[in-house]
Amino acid sequence: MKKVAIVMGSKSDLSVVSEAYDILKRFSVPVVVRVISAHRSIDTVLEFSRGLKDDGFGVVIAAAGKAAHLAGVVAANTSIPVIGLPIRSSTLDGLDSLLSTVQMPSGIPVATVAINGAVNAGILAMQILAVSDQDLYNALCNERVSLKEKQAKDDRSITAQYN
Amino acid sequence: MKKVAIVMGSKSDLSVVSEAYDILKRFSVPVVVRVISAHRSIDTVLEFSRGLKDDGFGVVIAAAGKAAHLAGVVAANTSIPVIGLPIRSSTLDGLDSLLSTVQMPSGIPVATVAINGAVNAGILAMQILAVSDQDLYNALCNERVSLKEKQAKDDRSITAQYN
Amino acid sequence: MKKVAIVMGSKSDLSVVSEAYDILKRFSVPVVVRVISAHRSIDTVLEFSRGLKDDGFGVVIAAAGKAAHLAGVVAANTSIPVIGLPIRSSTLDGLDSLLSTVQMPSGIPVATVAINGAVNAGILAMQILAVSDQDLYNALCNERVSLKEKQAKDDRSITAQYN
Amino acid sequence: MKKVAIVMGSKSDLSVVSEAYDILKRFSVPVVVRVISAHRSIDTVLEFSRGLKDDGFGVVIAAAGKAAHLAGVVAANTSIPVIGLPIRSSTLDGLDSLLSTVQMPSGIPVATVAINGAVNAGILAMQILAVSDQDLYNALCNERVSLKEKQAKDDRSITAQYN
Amino acid sequence: MKKVAIVMGSKSDLSVVSEAYDILKRFSVPVVVRVISAHRSIDTVLEFSRGLKDDGFGVVIAAAGKAAHLAGVVAANTSIPVIGLPIRSSTLDGLDSLLSTVQMPSGIPVATVAINGAVNAGILAMQILAVSDQDLYNALCNERVSLKEKQAKDDRSITAQYN
Amino acid sequence: MKKVAIVMGSKSDLSVVSEAYDILKRFSVPVVVRVISAHRSIDTVLEFSRGLKDDGFGVVIAAAGKAAHLAGVVAANTSIPVIGLPIRSSTLDGLDSLLSTVQMPSGIPVATVAINGAVNAGILAMQILAVSDQDLYNALCNERVSLKEKQAKDDRSITAQYN
Amino acid sequence: MKKVAIVMGSKSDLSVVSEAYDILKRFSVPVVVRVISAHRSIDTVLEFSRGLKDDGFGVVIAAAGKAAHLAGVVAANTSIPVIGLPIRSSTLDGLDSLLSTVQMPSGIPVATVAINGAVNAGILAMQILAVSDQDLYNALCNERVSLKEKQAKDDRSITAQYN
Amino acid sequence: MKKVAIVMGSKSDLSVVSEAYDILKRFSVPVVVRVISAHRSIDTVLEFSRGLKDDGFGVVIAAAGKAAHLAGVVAANTSIPVIGLPIRSSTLDGLDSLLSTVQMPSGIPVATVAINGAVNAGILAMQILAVSDQDLYNALCNERVSLKEKQAKDDRSITAQYN
Repeated sequence: MKKVAIVMGSKSDLSVVSEAYDILKRFSVPVVVRVISAHRSIDTVLEFSRGLKDDGFGVVIAAAGKAAHLAGVVAANTSIPVIGLPIRSSTLDGLDSLLSTVQMPSGIPVATVAINGAVNAGILAMQILAVSDQDLYNALCNERVSLKEKQAKDDRSITAQYN
Repeated sequence: MKKVAIVMGSKSDLSVVSEAYDILKRFSVPVVVRVISAHRSIDTVLEFSRGLKDDGFGVVIAAAGKAAHLAGVVAANTSIPVIGLPIRSSTLDGLDSLLSTVQMPSGIPVATVAINGAVNAGILAMQILAVSDQDLYNALCNERVSLKEKQAKDDRSITAQYN
Repeated sequence: MKKVAIVMGSKSDLSVVSEAYDILKRFSVPVVVRVISAHRSIDTVLEFSRGLKDDGFGVVIAAAGKAAHLAGVVAANTSIPVIGLPIRSSTLDGLDSLLSTVQMPSGIPVATVAINGAVNAGILAMQILAVSDQDLYNALCNERVSLKEKQAKDDRSITAQYN
Repeated sequence: MKKVAIVMGSKSDLSVVSEAYDILKRFSVPVVVRVISAHRSIDTVLEFSRGLKDDGFGVVIAAAGKAAHLAGVVAANTSIPVIGLPIRSSTLDGLDSLLSTVQMPSGIPVATVAINGAVNAGILAMQILAVSDQDLYNALCNERVSLKEKQAKDDRSITAQYN
Repeated sequence: MKKVAIVMGSKSDLSVVSEAYDILKRFSVPVVVRVISAHRSIDTVLEFSRGLKDDGFGVVIAAAGKAAHLAGVVAANTSIPVIGLPIRSSTLDGLDSLLSTVQMPSGIPVATVAINGAVNAGILAMQILAVSDQDLYNALCNERVSLKEKQAKDDRSITAQYN
Repeated sequence: MKKVAIVMGSKSDLSVVSEAYDILKRFSVPVVVRVISAHRSIDTVLEFSRGLKDDGFGVVIAAAGKAAHLAGVVAANTSIPVIGLPIRSSTLDGLDSLLSTVQMPSGIPVATVAINGAVNAGILAMQILAVSDQDLYNALCNERVSLKEKQAKDDRSITAQYN
Repeated sequence: MKKVAIVMGSKSDLSVVSEAYDILKRFSVPVVVRVISAHRSIDTVLEFSRGLKDDGFGVVIAAAGKAAHLAGVVAANTSIPVIGLPIRSSTLDGLDSLLSTVQMPSGIPVATVAINGAVNAGILAMQILAVSDQDLYNALCNERVSLKEKQAKDDRSITAQYN
Repeated sequence: MKKVAIVMGSKSDLSVVSEAYDILKRFSVPVVVRVISAHRSIDTVLEFSRGLKDDGFGVVIAAAGKAAHLAGVVAANTSIPVIGLPIRSSTLDGLDSLLSTVQMPSGIPVATVAINGAVNAGILAMQILAVSDQDLYNALCNERVSLKEKQAKDDRSITAQYN
């Protein structure tokens, strides 16, 4: 199975990003986690990005805050899909991270998820791998069923209480 | 080869969306284009979304403006990757479309590209297919080389003119 | 008397939404509360929405946060009035929820109230029922008188204290 | 049948607002149109608002731009439902109109539609009347069928052209 | 001396608004404080606003949050200057209050100060009265000197500490 | 009668600002117009601002765009009321001008009107002078009557046409 | 004299960026202009950035739009000052470019000027060089005098016309 | 060596601004810290700004919040580079400070860093001085190496923990 890479711009993003790791591990997807920065360690970013395909990665999740350049720079150096995860920082409530991640110029897409949407970054990564992995696709479909069942349970519980 | 579906909420989105179609055709990727709406034809959306996998689609691009629900509803009814393409509408400069598309709740990701970023939606779709298609991957890498060469040509032209 | 439906996208919206329930119960309006999601349980949403008229509902309040699609999807599947209640989520201070709820395309309106404006959602629901229910109309007018009296009391209290 | 009132703050809002009038007339709903202002003719607004119920109105649409107070002031002086229609003005792209209309304090709801969403204001008004008017309800349901059919036609046309 | 009126839309605005009261009292300006609402007690607002000139008021401060209509409605019913004080509410960080207060249509100005800028509302009120009151003008000039001296003191203290 | 000063940061603001001049002249208020800049001619700004009171000015209108500092700097150097008129510039639709003008720190108020709200700046200036000028007050009240009559005429015209 | 580099992400930025070039040439500052992209030609960006100091550059201006990463990536690969020039793109009015440029993480500053503020980018570059170049400093001071004189001339012209 | 001036509009900005001081002292750069205000002590600001060059300063950092005019006014009165540091204030999350600082009119640039980006303000000041100071340039390059090493250490630590 192809691996998923999770990269974050700063160790301080870990509390959000770890949710992506957790869900990938729960589905037994091989994951590598790195702390690399478009600003502080660009050579590592380039080497890492350019090796992704050959190193067996199918997709990469890049998380960063503020002027969030990491996903864009990774995307510019690989042709595997790059998922951008905007991290809410101490000012502007994540709007800066979102716009810096999603508003990419023509030619270099970043597949952006919601601000702090780490779980969805993990699921999207698996959906991408599942395009050619029927078992993983089935597992994701089952997860949907679970979500639906949890929703139905919440529905019954609230309906009982409030009517 | 797996197919790409392009759906748009309204025929008026076509002038933007056709750029996604064009780039996919240029790479000889099979594409199906539909005009379906989470609001005006939800049954068609559901039927379409739920059949995507079995109908041989690998990824779907969903374009919509304003309170852009189409990508989210498609994503809720398939486990193949859904690319959200926010369309700039007549007010608010696309901010409403962007937030309605990207800020998805946990469990149902939408891979969002820039406002009116149709070319990138097309490229991202191909990157996703290319995870298991080495030829397509190589074609995308070549496209990058072309972009780089065009950039280098622009660079030489401007440098010659302005120095 | 026609009933009011309150639906919310997630159980976590309950602390806000319960204010709508409370005011409806205070006016003895029959209410049904559901936790259904445009993303996690769309079939339930469709079945529920399409049955609203026949099940005796006169109006529905739909509460959701972030890319808040619930009100729009309900509105697309019934012709009874749908009140959209945008819920403030953890980022962007509710602006995403507001725009996703209010900026509906032509043909499918959602009657949107303020971010977290659950009490007003309840009152608006009753105003709609009261179009053909003179007793309820009178009760709402009396509530206005109470608001006015409370305001007058606050006015006297502050005026006494500060002048 | 109960009548619909359409009020606008300025004659210059007419080009947008007339779309609400047109759709109401198409459904043979009796409409009265007024140009009254919370700022320039408040007494008229109050007299008008307070007489709405007795004058046979079931719902009122209030359109205004910038610091759009008209809908709020009307809503404060009647207990029939008030639909707020934010008009895009020359700066800020309608965001000021939207927030001034929708962010009403507890106790006085305004049912807000999209910026410049005049058609939806008209439809919402009819949905409210249709709570107690089965013929109008049926007519609105038929309109939905037309929308759906137009969407299906657009779908076929685009599908034929692009595949 | 002409009096200053301070009106607020809700008793909950008092903790901010009281700073305007305090600075006016410190300058011995006669002040009347009222809790009146464009939505909950419009008749009181109209009666109050229309009597302001004859009741000896020279200027009025109107504080409100969210869809902040109070200042606009007062301004529409008097020709004495109206100072708008936007109150930060629980969502959107006061942006809604600011836009609802400042973006007034042509003909009815509101002199708007910063979000929660109650002290400045008080000073502006005195500046307006001081146009024809030399003693008050002198007192305001002296206050400026105090501000300047406090600033100079802070400057010396920090300079000493940090160099 | 006290004079009104109108200052603008750049000659390019004139097309907007001239509306303030026009309405002041229509009421026969003495006006002086200057093009002075907090950035390009600060000494002139300071000299001008500090002389305002002695030179017989009762109020000053300061218009500027982008990082609009002019009103704030004038306000810091006079104790007569300063009206800030934010000018819409080529980007950000006037939001930068509005925030730079209105968000003044405690101690130095600027009475801000709407973006490009030049007519209201002129009226507010006259309202301030009218605090001690009964004739001007009466003239402003008559203007209100005219506005009201124009509104009533528009109302009759539209009502005749649309019902 | 040290040289100034001007880099832009796309040839389409040239119409804005050329204003920076023009003012630098007017002051006889040696300039090199390049079209290089953090996304399309990252190796060129790195090689260029890392050579800046040795190649005799004192400062670099980096212009880009949308998710504007160029200035940040240049700044991460040189320790000479980097001026960020956000370019207004087709949506969001330049807010995305501004935030992507200015909100840099700790350790890697970008000296950001106004959206489309190319002239100021050029002046700032010269101010930086002038720290150790008294002739250039004097020339910049003279430019200020010219600005001031132009302002004074505009002032006299408008004053003559409007008073 | 040329000195760096740090000025802030209010003593309350010190907790943020002191980070700029700390990093400058760590590099043994001579620093002067002042609390001066474009609003409360403009003469001091002018005198200070105009003397900067002769007093041996090479660059100045100006920090302010809300309608942040300090950097602009300093910049208008010196031709040495001015770094603007927008301070996050109690409302609007620093957006007002950022726009008031960065959106300067043509002719008077302010080199703006991120909201509350005090460390970067300090580094940028040193980069500017280092244009003509090879030792400082080398020290800044070494700092980059440290950042890179810390990043590599974080990377190893996280990689070890999460894989």
